[in-house]
Amino acid sequence: MCYTDKTMPTKLEQLKARLAQVADIKAASAVLEWDQHVHMPPAAAASRGQQMARLRSLAHSIFTADEVGELIEATAAETAGMDDDADEACLIRGVRRDFDRDRRIPEALVAEQAQVCAQAYSAWQKARQESDFAHFQPHLERIVDVVSRISEALGYEESPYDALLHLYEPEMKSSQLVHIFGDLKAGLVPLVDAIQCEGRPVDDTLLHQSFDTESQWALGLEILKDMGFDMERGRQDISEHPFTTSFAPDDVRTTTRIDPGNLKTALFGTIHEGGHALYDQGIRSELARSPLFDGASYGIHESQSRLWENVVARSRGFWSHYLSALKIAFPQQLGNFGVDKFYRAINKVEPSLIRVEADEVTYCLHILLRFELETDLLEQRLTVADLPDAWDAKMEHYLAVTPPDDAHGVLQDVHWADCLLGYFPSYALGSLLSVQFYVRATQDDPSIPGEIARGNLAPLRAWLRENIHSHGKKYTPTELVQRVTGGPMSATPFLTYLNEKYRDIYDL
Amino acid sequence: MCYTDKTMPTKLEQLKARLAQVADIKAASAVLEWDQHVHMPPAAAASRGQQMARLRSLAHSIFTADEVGELIEATAAETAGMDDDADEACLIRGVRRDFDRDRRIPEALVAEQAQVCAQAYSAWQKARQESDFAHFQPHLERIVDVVSRISEALGYEESPYDALLHLYEPEMKSSQLVHIFGDLKAGLVPLVDAIQCEGRPVDDTLLHQSFDTESQWALGLEILKDMGFDMERGRQDISEHPFTTSFAPDDVRTTTRIDPGNLKTALFGTIHEGGHALYDQGIRSELARSPLFDGASYGIHESQSRLWENVVARSRGFWSHYLSALKIAFPQQLGNFGVDKFYRAINKVEPSLIRVEADEVTYCLHILLRFELETDLLEQRLTVADLPDAWDAKMEHYLAVTPPDDAHGVLQDVHWADCLLGYFPSYALGSLLSVQFYVRATQDDPSIPGEIARGNLAPLRAWLRENIHSHGKKYTPTELVQRVTGGPMSATPFLTYLNEKYRDIYDL
Repeated sequence: MCYTDKTMPTKLEQLKARLAQVADIKAASAVLEWDQHVHMPPAAAASRGQQMARLRSLAHSIFTADEVGELIEATAAETAGMDDDADEACLIRGVRRDFDRDRRIPEALVAEQAQVCAQAYSAWQKARQESDFAHFQPHLERIVDVVSRISEALGYEESPYDALLHLYEPEMKSSQLVHIFGDLKAGLVPLVDAIQCEGRPVDDTLLHQSFDTESQWALGLEILKDMGFDMERGRQDISEHPFTTSFAPDDVRTTTRIDPGNLKTALFGTIHEGGHALYDQGIRSELARSPLFDGASYGIHESQSRLWENVVARSRGFWSHYLSALKIAFPQQLGNFGVDKFYRAINKVEPSLIRVEADEVTYCLHILLRFELETDLLEQRLTVADLPDAWDAKMEHYLAVTPPDDAHGVLQDVHWADCLLGYFPSYALGSLLSVQFYVRATQDDPSIPGEIARGNLAPLRAWLRENIHSHGKKYTPTELVQRVTGGPMSATPFLTYLNEKYRDIYDL
Repeated sequence: MCYTDKTMPTKLEQLKARLAQVADIKAASAVLEWDQHVHMPPAAAASRGQQMARLRSLAHSIFTADEVGELIEATAAETAGMDDDADEACLIRGVRRDFDRDRRIPEALVAEQAQVCAQAYSAWQKARQESDFAHFQPHLERIVDVVSRISEALGYEESPYDALLHLYEPEMKSSQLVHIFGDLKAGLVPLVDAIQCEGRPVDDTLLHQSFDTESQWALGLEILKDMGFDMERGRQDISEHPFTTSFAPDDVRTTTRIDPGNLKTALFGTIHEGGHALYDQGIRSELARSPLFDGASYGIHESQSRLWENVVARSRGFWSHYLSALKIAFPQQLGNFGVDKFYRAINKVEPSLIRVEADEVTYCLHILLRFELETDLLEQRLTVADLPDAWDAKMEHYLAVTPPDDAHGVLQDVHWADCLLGYFPSYALGSLLSVQFYVRATQDDPSIPGEIARGNLAPLRAWLRENIHSHGKKYTPTELVQRVTGGPMSATPFLTYLNEKYRDIYDL
C-alpha cells in the first residue's frame, strides 16, 4: 500500500467540489427563473434576464475549464476498478459526456444563439398575436441557421437533428424515433378515425361549469399530498404556464393554473406537475449537487407526469375513490353524476388545433407532426418559408383539422422561438414510457390498481421511487428503460393501453 | 490627439462590466435570500445556505481579483480630469474604498467568520428559547474574537470598533457617535422621565382590538401606493420579520407581517418598509448594476423608513386624512374615535424591555445601550461573561426597567449571533437623520405638511427622490447630509421634534 496524505482531497473529491459549485449556481439560476414566472413584477424582465444570463455563463465557464477536463482524466483512473453501477462510475461517465459536449460549442456561438433567441421571442409574441408568420419568418430562419451550426459543432453520425435531440434525450437517434413514431402513427390514426366515425359520442359539458378557484386549489393540494408530494420539501404556486423546478432534493417547486370555467385545467395540470415533482423529490440525496441530481432525460421526466396525469388520474379506478371528494367540493355541479359519466367526460377524444389542449389519444400526433417538420428543416428538405403550408397539410392529414390562421397553427408553440429544436419528441416519448413503466409496476406489484381504487397511492409511488426516481440521472434513458422494463422503448404497450381504454369508452 | 481603437472597450468600460457581473451575482443572492424568508419550504435551509454562500464567494472573488485593482488604477487616470461630482468619479472613489477594504480580509478569516456565525445562530436560537445565556456565551466569545481580528485586518485609527462601524456607516468614527449619542442621551432621559412622572396618561387600548388580516393588508397596500411605491416595479409579501430588498431599480421587494390583535404591527411596519422601498425605487437607473446602486449607508436608508413611519405616519396631519380610510376598513372598532384620540394612542410612550417594540422616544436608548456594550467588548473593557449583568444595569439606568430573564434582555436580538457588531448605531442615526431631512424638506417646500394632511404624499416623495434617493451611494453619508441639510449629523433637530411633539401629547 502506498502512502496517501489524508489532508489532501483526492481528485474525485476535487472534481465533486467543482461540480457542486456548478450545481449551486444552476440551482440559483433556477430560483431566479421560478421567481420570474411566479412573482416577478412586470417591469423587471430585462434586469432578471441579465442576472440569469450571468449565472448561466458562470456555470458554463466553471464547468468547461481545462482543470475540469484534467480532473475527469485523473479521476477516471481512480474509478477504473469500480463497479459500472457505482454512483461514482456513473458520475464520471456522465460528466465526461457533458464536458465533451459543452466544450464543443464555441462561446461565441452560445452568445449568438442567446441573442438570436431573445430577438426571436419578442418577434414570435407579436407574430402570434397578429397571426402573421411573415413577421416571425426571418427570425426562425436565423434560428434554424444557428442551431444547425451548433449541431455541426456538436457533431453527429447520421442526422444533424441527432445532435440537438441529444440535449434532451442522450444517445437517442432520429432514426430510432422514425421507427418508434412510425409504429405510433400506424396505431393512432385508425384509432382516432374509429372514435370519430363509429364511437358513441361523449358529453363533457359537466366539466365546463363554474368551479370556484379556492376549492379547486384545496382539492389539488389534497391530491398532491396523497400522491406523496412532501410540502416540507416543496411548495405549489400559481403561474400562467404550469411548470416544476427543483433547487435541491429538499426544495422542489411546482405550479398550477386554475380556470374557473374548466375543471380539467387545474385538476390534471396539478397532477401532471405533481408527477414531475415526485421524481425530483425522490432522487437519492447522495446525488445532490452533482449532474446526476436530475431526471434521466426529458422524456423520462415526462413519463412521470403523464403516468400520474393520464394512466392514473384518467382511470376509472382513481375516480371510483376520488369522485366523492370532488362531489364534496362541488356538490351542486357534480352531485348528479356517477363515476362512469365522469370517467367518459374526462376522456373525451376530439381532434383539435392546439397541442396543449389535446386529449391523450390525439396528443402524440401533434408531436409527430412537429418532429417531421423539424427534421425536414434540419435536413434541408423544407424551407422556413414553406413551413406554414407544410404544417397545415400535416394537420389535415393526421387530424383532419385545418388551422384557420397561423396563430392556431405553426405559431402556437414557444419552443422554436426559444431555439428548442429537438425538444418536442420528449413529450411523445413520455407518453409511451408512462405506459411501459406502469405495466411493469403492476407486474411487480399487482396490488397497485386496487390500492389506487381505494385512494392509496403509496404503493405506486414506492415502486416509482425505487425503480426510477431514486436513480436520478445515473443511467441513460436507454439503460434505465432496459433496467426497468427488461426491453427497449416501444410504442406497443401505449397503443395496447389506448385501444383497450378507448374502445371501451367509445363502444367500439 | 492620439489614436483610440473604438472597438476596444476603455478601461472604465471594462471596470464597469466587471462591476456589473458582481452586481448581477449579488442581486441573484438577494433573490435567494428573499425567497428564503418569504416562500422557501422549511427543509431547504441547508441547501439554500450552500447556494447563497457560493454566490457570495463568487462575487467576492470576482471583485477582489488583481485585474480589478489594475483596472481601478488605470481608470483613475481616465477619470482624473472629471468633476468630483460626476457619476464616474464617485464610482471610482467608492470602488477603490470597497476594493481596498475587501482585499484586506483574508479569505480564511471570511470563511471562519461564516462558520462561527452559522454555529452561533443555532446556539442563540436555543439559548433565547431557554433563556440560557451560558449556552450562547462561548459562541459570542468566538464572535467577539473573530470580529476583533477582522477589525485588525481592516485597520483603524482610533478604535477597533471603527473598522466594523465602517461596514455600515462609511467614514463614521465611534468617537463621533459618542458625541452625538451623548447629546441624545442628555436630551432623551429627562424627556422620558417627564412623560413617565408628569404626563397625562395615554390610553391605546383602541389599537388592541380584533382587526381582520385581509382588510389590514388592503389598507397597507393602499397607503404604499399613495406613498408612491410602484407595483409594476416591485411587490409586497408576508414574512415573519418584515424587510425590504432590491434586485434592480425595477424589482424592489418589501414584506410585512400582520397581527390581528394589534393594528400598529402591519400599519407602521408596512409604511416603514415602504420608506426603504421608495429609496430603492428612486435610485437613478443609470447607477444600476454598480456599487452605487445602493443606499448611502444603513443609517441613511433607515432615515427613509423612519421618516415615513414616524415623522409622517405618526403625525396628526397624516391621520387627519387617513383616519377616515381606517374607519371605513374598521367601522366597528374605530368608528367612535376622533383624530386626537387616535393620534395620542399611536404615540404612547412606555419604557419597555424589547427594542423592536419600543416607541419613538425610548427607541434610541435601546441603541445607546447596545453601542456602549459593543464598544466596551471591542475595546476590552467588558468580558462576554459579564455582559448580561452590564445589560441589565444599563436597562435599569436608561429605562428604569429590569429584564426578568436573558431572553427579554441580552438575548433578544439576532444581530450579535449574526456577527453584526457595529450595526446597531445605524438605527439611531436613522431616527436623527429622518428629522434633519424632513426639516430641510419643509424648508425647501413649505407645502409638504399641508399636502400630507390632504392625503397628497407626492411633494414629500418628490423632494426625497431629488435630494436623497436618486443619488444612490454616490456620496458618503457625511457628504450627503452636508449636501442636503447644509450641516453635519446632529441630535438637536430630533430632540427638538420629540420635545415639541411629546410635550404636547403628554401636556407637559
